[in-house]
Amino acid sequence: MNAHEDNAAANPVSVVGLGAMGQAIAAVLLANGHPTTVWNRSAGKADELVARGAVDAGTLGAAVGASPLVIACLLDHASVHEALEPVADLLSGRVLVNVTTTTAAEARRTAAWAAEHGIDYLDGAMIAVPQMIGRPGSSLLYSGSRTAFEQHRAMLDLLGASTYFGEDAGLASLYDLALLSGMYAMFGGFFHATAMVGTAGAKATEFVSMLVPWLKSMADLLPSYAEIIEKGDYTTDVQSLLFNKSAVDAIARTSLEQGIGVDMVAPVQALIDRQIAEGHGADSFVRVIEGIRNPVPRS
Amino acid sequence: MNAHEDNAAANPVSVVGLGAMGQAIAAVLLANGHPTTVWNRSAGKADELVARGAVDAGTLGAAVGASPLVIACLLDHASVHEALEPVADLLSGRVLVNVTTTTAAEARRTAAWAAEHGIDYLDGAMIAVPQMIGRPGSSLLYSGSRTAFEQHRAMLDLLGASTYFGEDAGLASLYDLALLSGMYAMFGGFFHATAMVGTAGAKATEFVSMLVPWLKSMADLLPSYAEIIEKGDYTTDVQSLLFNKSAVDAIARTSLEQGIGVDMVAPVQALIDRQIAEGHGADSFVRVIEGIRNPVPRS
Repeated sequence: MNAHEDNAAANPVSVVGLGAMGQAIAAVLLANGHPTTVWNRSAGKADELVARGAVDAGTLGAAVGASPLVIACLLDHASVHEALEPVADLLSGRVLVNVTTTTAAEARRTAAWAAEHGIDYLDGAMIAVPQMIGRPGSSLLYSGSRTAFEQHRAMLDLLGASTYFGEDAGLASLYDLALLSGMYAMFGGFFHATAMVGTAGAKATEFVSMLVPWLKSMADLLPSYAEIIEKGDYTTDVQSLLFNKSAVDAIARTSLEQGIGVDMVAPVQALIDRQIAEGHGADSFVRVIEGIRNPVPRS
Repeated sequence: MNAHEDNAAANPVSVVGLGAMGQAIAAVLLANGHPTTVWNRSAGKADELVARGAVDAGTLGAAVGASPLVIACLLDHASVHEALEPVADLLSGRVLVNVTTTTAAEARRTAAWAAEHGIDYLDGAMIAVPQMIGRPGSSLLYSGSRTAFEQHRAMLDLLGASTYFGEDAGLASLYDLALLSGMYAMFGGFFHATAMVGTAGAKATEFVSMLVPWLKSMADLLPSYAEIIEKGDYTTDVQSLLFNKSAVDAIARTSLEQGIGVDMVAPVQALIDRQIAEGHGADSFVRVIEGIRNPVPRS
């Protein structure tokens, strides 16, 4: 940690956008002794950070002008361009690290815009919720300017473990959104499971102590699924798609019997049914990935 | 383990249905020294077990007649009744443990049928895949006859940790299917995430080493979600539904840009959008469980 502090101690940094994530980032940089300037479109978000030593720039231009490194953490792609395009000239010659959640194509468009304006652009994606920033388990993904990444890596590592994916600015977003998609599906499954047992009066806090160890032990099967996907050989002698169909159909029927929705169950059912309809009922459940890879054309 | 062996050593048991799960169950009972009789509708499934010392009963009636405890592990509720109704008189006075995956209502119907025929009925559900049976991490849920559970618990514990939920025979299925629903949603998310990064040439086996630790660390947030659900207070000052909408929309747009389906993303999007449409955009993402609990009536 001291290596990071030594390397990064003299680097002023500006954090633009003080939602929960922007505030968490600024707080960690401040706590590590970096001169930190902050800005937010609406007032009041900077107060707590200012109390800890941050400078509230008042205007976005002043925030950009205060530091060679600007970290943008805004709502979405549109807010990034709405905020930053008017200060493009001020950003020129500086490093812009944009950790706003955007699509991969949007990240590439922002990189192209930055290149036009002489801005050294690094796209970042946070594999963390705000309360994890700067703590073990926090991980940040980067793609775009390799020099920007290498120059500021010591400071970026303060926020979480950093991984650089390459010059294509879209890669960090693609990996980030992929990881988030896994998380949201798991959360959706948690909501469904909790709603199911809730119909029999189960307490969510008691059920979760059964569900979490189960999900973790099932997550340990995923590397073997990844091997199957990579080999592309879906033949199996255990638990075919037909077997899984029987289980998923029972989940759906029980959910409907108990009066709850099948929002998170129906898509798995449909993916299984499609593979069976295409003649693969005896194959491994892992084959459902083919349905996601090759979507039915939308009419 | 020796306490189990001592208690259960003299208990003959019959296993009816030799799919992957039935074979795994019979193999563990055999390995622990129990006289094990097996039966399967189609031939050939018993061969490996017979080589290890099991008796192939030849007929279902002979299998039922061989042991005071019959474990049924069939495809579904219909196969249970198709197979067992003709031998109801033989089952009378015996214990039937049915670990076939069924809905909660189906388990209750089988319990009622068993009661009519003087069969001591315990419904079971396996929180395990076949390769886990008899190993750490395997867990089995039971509901129905308490005396049957207590009488045979030592033997049942050989298959995995046993939990008894109460006399309502439907409870084991409800909890089992709830846990499975969480697993299937997580698996669906894994397939989606892997398909996403696959569009940029990522290897599934490399990506999974990033995804699994991420999913496990996100699973550790679920107890705090369960507390929110139990309190029913969805107010939040971090990461509202509107924030999550922005992330999930970015996942969907990026997936479509990359040419893959949004099967596992669209339902989460719809659940979020519904809560926002109902005026709860500033509330916690956890509120989406309300959409599952209170489904939109199907037209």
